Amino acid sequence: MNRKELINQIFTKKSFLCVGLDPDINKIPKHLLELEDPIFEFLKQIVDTTAPYSVAYKPNIAFFECLGIKGLITFDKIVRYIKENYPEVFIIADAKRGDIGNTAKMYAKTFFEEYDVDAITVAPYMGEDSVQPFLDYENKWTIVLALTSNKGSHDFQFIEDKNGKQVFQHILSKTQEWGNKENLMFVVGATQGSMFSKIRELAPDNFLLVPGVGAQGGSLQEVCKYGITKECGLLVNSSRGIIFASADKDFATIAGQKAKELQEEMAEELKKVL
Amino acid sequence: MNRKELINQIFTKKSFLCVGLDPDINKIPKHLLELEDPIFEFLKQIVDTTAPYSVAYKPNIAFFECLGIKGLITFDKIVRYIKENYPEVFIIADAKRGDIGNTAKMYAKTFFEEYDVDAITVAPYMGEDSVQPFLDYENKWTIVLALTSNKGSHDFQFIEDKNGKQVFQHILSKTQEWGNKENLMFVVGATQGSMFSKIRELAPDNFLLVPGVGAQGGSLQEVCKYGITKECGLLVNSSRGIIFASADKDFATIAGQKAKELQEEMAEELKKVL
Repeated sequence: MNRKELINQIFTKKSFLCVGLDPDINKIPKHLLELEDPIFEFLKQIVDTTAPYSVAYKPNIAFFECLGIKGLITFDKIVRYIKENYPEVFIIADAKRGDIGNTAKMYAKTFFEEYDVDAITVAPYMGEDSVQPFLDYENKWTIVLALTSNKGSHDFQFIEDKNGKQVFQHILSKTQEWGNKENLMFVVGATQGSMFSKIRELAPDNFLLVPGVGAQGGSLQEVCKYGITKECGLLVNSSRGIIFASADKDFATIAGQKAKELQEEMAEELKKVL
Repeated sequence: MNRKELINQIFTKKSFLCVGLDPDINKIPKHLLELEDPIFEFLKQIVDTTAPYSVAYKPNIAFFECLGIKGLITFDKIVRYIKENYPEVFIIADAKRGDIGNTAKMYAKTFFEEYDVDAITVAPYMGEDSVQPFLDYENKWTIVLALTSNKGSHDFQFIEDKNGKQVFQHILSKTQEWGNKENLMFVVGATQGSMFSKIRELAPDNFLLVPGVGAQGGSLQEVCKYGITKECGLLVNSSRGIIFASADKDFATIAGQKAKELQEEMAEELKKVL
């Protein structure tokens, strides 16, 4: 999917919601466990009720890998299900891969050819040759970790060089020598909304994938205040706050409601930039 | 496997060779392609001829993932094959994972419970909660990327703070607050042997996993000069230089010879520290 199609979808649906699909087998409703593929059934129903309010899905591959081979079959099935039934939706494999050039090429092939998703999250620590193979695919997106929303983000991402430039800022500027706003996004955690003005100085036009709204405590209004652009430029992710909002038989209905609530807040924010 | 067992194996075999299993389907001998699982057959034969000279195998998961589900079945098969036939050997899943706490826990479960390998490589960019879940497993090892051997390593790993401390040095010191020499190793590229004295200042006792000897240009003697300790403290990896030394029917024999040559050099280096 290219940038124009993504932006069109956002303004048509009046939403920049990305639903994180992190299907922890211990948290899904008990009545699904007797089915042949409980995780697939769980996600399928979540997708069906949230799709009208979402522009993107972000399955985290770890939650599938931990179930072994059958988990990966489920991953493949849910990606196909979304592509067949909601072809307008953007699919992000949250994989945080990063390895030397020839290995990165293999990962790019896996996610962009085998699974054929639109985007993958990538860890930047190993530098250019670990990122470039992903950028080489046309109409595919590389989403580089810049500033994450977890507690551990403070350990290394904020290290300052002698000019006061922090590591995450180096990543924002350096990676733009390799990619551009048509193929490069950044992960920027929402835990401190005001950080978004710092981010926009270095990445004025790139889309930002924003985790940490909801369960992790970030505020949508704060993020938009500092981070939204005329073309939106944001994909705000919510995982647990939607998919585990209920652990009962009504889980999918409740997930749909939660997605709708966020979409309505997002519609208000989009009005401001039009 | 614990530290003592690893060290015993090194001094018994007089080797600290790790063979990197990166089975690129385009590079394996053509006569294997007609078999049902060419990659497994290729690796099985390599393992059989190199095992007398090696203390560790490091399959890179990317080369299996790129073949989809059947690639992961092969990964599982080769890990089981090594464990059953060479139970003394240390197995490293080269996966370079790194994600927030609850996701890292899933990855740890995948590699330490599902595949049951001894060690996994981990990317440190997301900080403590992305590393800790791996360290929590007893008799398993977390191998954190510190200084990699690829060209892109210069992009972010050498950024200096105002006191001249570089990012990779921050990683060496900070991660030792979370783990210790019994469960924490570091990836340190061999491309500049003299860097090892800098590394040993901050990590005097940790094992170092050293890629970049051979195909990538690093010298074993240089690495040992600055990096070896009384307990060895090194696992030196060679991938392409061994597994693709011949693309003919004799590939396994040649791989065994290459492994033997490296083992003999290593035996000389080990003599110096005894």
